[in-house]
Amino acid sequence: MSRIALGVDVGGTKVLALAVGEDGTVFDSERVETPHVAERPAGDAAADAVMSVVTTLTQRNHWSLRDVVVGVGLPGMMSREGVLVFAPNLPTASGADLAAALRERSPEMRVLCENDADCAAVAEHRWGAARGHDDVVMVTLGTGVGGGIISGGELVRGRSGFAGEIGHMVVDAHGPRCPCGGRGCWERYASGGGVARLAREAAVAGRLPTLVRQYAGDADAVRGEDVTRAAAEGLPEALAVVDEVGWWLALGIANLAAILDCGVFVIGGGLSEASALLLPAAQRHLSSLVEGGSARPPLLVIPSKFGERSGALGAAALATQRLT
Amino acid sequence: MSRIALGVDVGGTKVLALAVGEDGTVFDSERVETPHVAERPAGDAAADAVMSVVTTLTQRNHWSLRDVVVGVGLPGMMSREGVLVFAPNLPTASGADLAAALRERSPEMRVLCENDADCAAVAEHRWGAARGHDDVVMVTLGTGVGGGIISGGELVRGRSGFAGEIGHMVVDAHGPRCPCGGRGCWERYASGGGVARLAREAAVAGRLPTLVRQYAGDADAVRGEDVTRAAAEGLPEALAVVDEVGWWLALGIANLAAILDCGVFVIGGGLSEASALLLPAAQRHLSSLVEGGSARPPLLVIPSKFGERSGALGAAALATQRLT
Repeated sequence: MSRIALGVDVGGTKVLALAVGEDGTVFDSERVETPHVAERPAGDAAADAVMSVVTTLTQRNHWSLRDVVVGVGLPGMMSREGVLVFAPNLPTASGADLAAALRERSPEMRVLCENDADCAAVAEHRWGAARGHDDVVMVTLGTGVGGGIISGGELVRGRSGFAGEIGHMVVDAHGPRCPCGGRGCWERYASGGGVARLAREAAVAGRLPTLVRQYAGDADAVRGEDVTRAAAEGLPEALAVVDEVGWWLALGIANLAAILDCGVFVIGGGLSEASALLLPAAQRHLSSLVEGGSARPPLLVIPSKFGERSGALGAAALATQRLT
Repeated sequence: MSRIALGVDVGGTKVLALAVGEDGTVFDSERVETPHVAERPAGDAAADAVMSVVTTLTQRNHWSLRDVVVGVGLPGMMSREGVLVFAPNLPTASGADLAAALRERSPEMRVLCENDADCAAVAEHRWGAARGHDDVVMVTLGTGVGGGIISGGELVRGRSGFAGEIGHMVVDAHGPRCPCGGRGCWERYASGGGVARLAREAAVAGRLPTLVRQYAGDADAVRGEDVTRAAAEGLPEALAVVDEVGWWLALGIANLAAILDCGVFVIGGGLSEASALLLPAAQRHLSSLVEGGSARPPLLVIPSKFGERSGALGAAALATQRLT
């Protein structure tokens, strides 16, 4: 039993739990919908949801809560003490001390909380797409852009545990407003939200005539999914917009390569469904965007191996590493 | 004798060597002008200059080359193997295998080469302004912007040794061209070159009328030094331009804080002479620029303790650490 860790990934829509062996094998899984209950204390409902999937897995497998270690990945800025200090995609848990809430529910259970993209980075580095590489950035393209950084084989945590907030790197100082309060953050371009914005901009500018016709001439109605779907079907005007998104993705990757000299960029998250087109576009633009490109070994931009499971897998890996 | 290391900093204008004890005490120093001799093989003249200062120091102190360790800081992308692969400010040494050239000149001498800003980061972290902090970025503001990153108490080197090229982080995708081939790199704004550019822009736009009058109405003649000097004397129009440079400095620092969650930013380099005005301006703008600013402990922007000596000091520290 000491060889099994539970990894729980609390996302904006679902809570996924995996029972994971030391070699990354998944023995069991469980999922529930993420509760968004505003009238209870911050994080209360999220902690209940985590306990629910953990209890289901332990009872089903006849494990004691005393014997398992639990890692929890959360979407936001996680402090080293387990407080979710800033979580725009899980507002009802923002500010909550999740580690304390879980210890209250089960004092005998050993648990740690970490940012979800940091967890994903650990999973892809240990068992996945970035195995064998010491300097890696995990880039999760969802509504926003999350990140986890491996440097010299170790997760970069930073002073308070907040490292990896790569989506809020400003790449266009005069660009559009970001919900974080800034302007021109990378995630305004290279994310699901960014594709939606760039798609509408292209539609309004007359660069997506076929798609606009499908909405009876209403350019504002064109969505990001319309563009990624039409691009997958080979529509040139949609491919041009995907190429633009790929350019912005490459620009941020080039910045991270200059700062960190990471050689491998693993792309995950919901938008990575469009990765068959997006990643080659980014790879194509990258060499001309990174400083001293010709003096560097090639940079790899590759898809996540574990997809939506990477966060929970990495949370389990971190629990094993830090709690046993 | 085993307690003394020699640190050599090869800059664009001078080569500075220090004899440094294990606690950072400087026992002796020597400097020569940096040779820029294009007709000899790349790096040949630079290697001779390093050997010259090293020989002077060892002979003057009756040390044997066999007994000293030597660290050399160089201005450019240094590979882990000691090759200066890309050095815009020392073009006659660009591409040279400096480590090999030095071993040829003195096979018994133990030597390592590292990027100069990385060296400076190590010195400020171990003995200087950032002592006691584990997550630190050294920012050197010269003609361009150099950087060295300490994460979890360790120098971030990256896959090939190129980490810390923070000046070529793009902060304004549609901004001015950079000699690196990119557009809108941070160093186009927050550096000596950046001040010169922003000063000329302000002069041409009519925002520096007093300084333009001093050049008989020739706005293009206004230099960065004119602005920093006039700002130090309290001229409001010049202070406004320094504030603008401070805003750009803060923007890049905010990006690095989001990515790395470093709490301390040490500012060095030639432009840091203007730091009495520039650093408070950056500090003032910073909290509104960094994501989740209110959830973070304060970020410190502080001047280098060792100034122009930080590179040589850090080179000595690294030599002690890696070679003994």
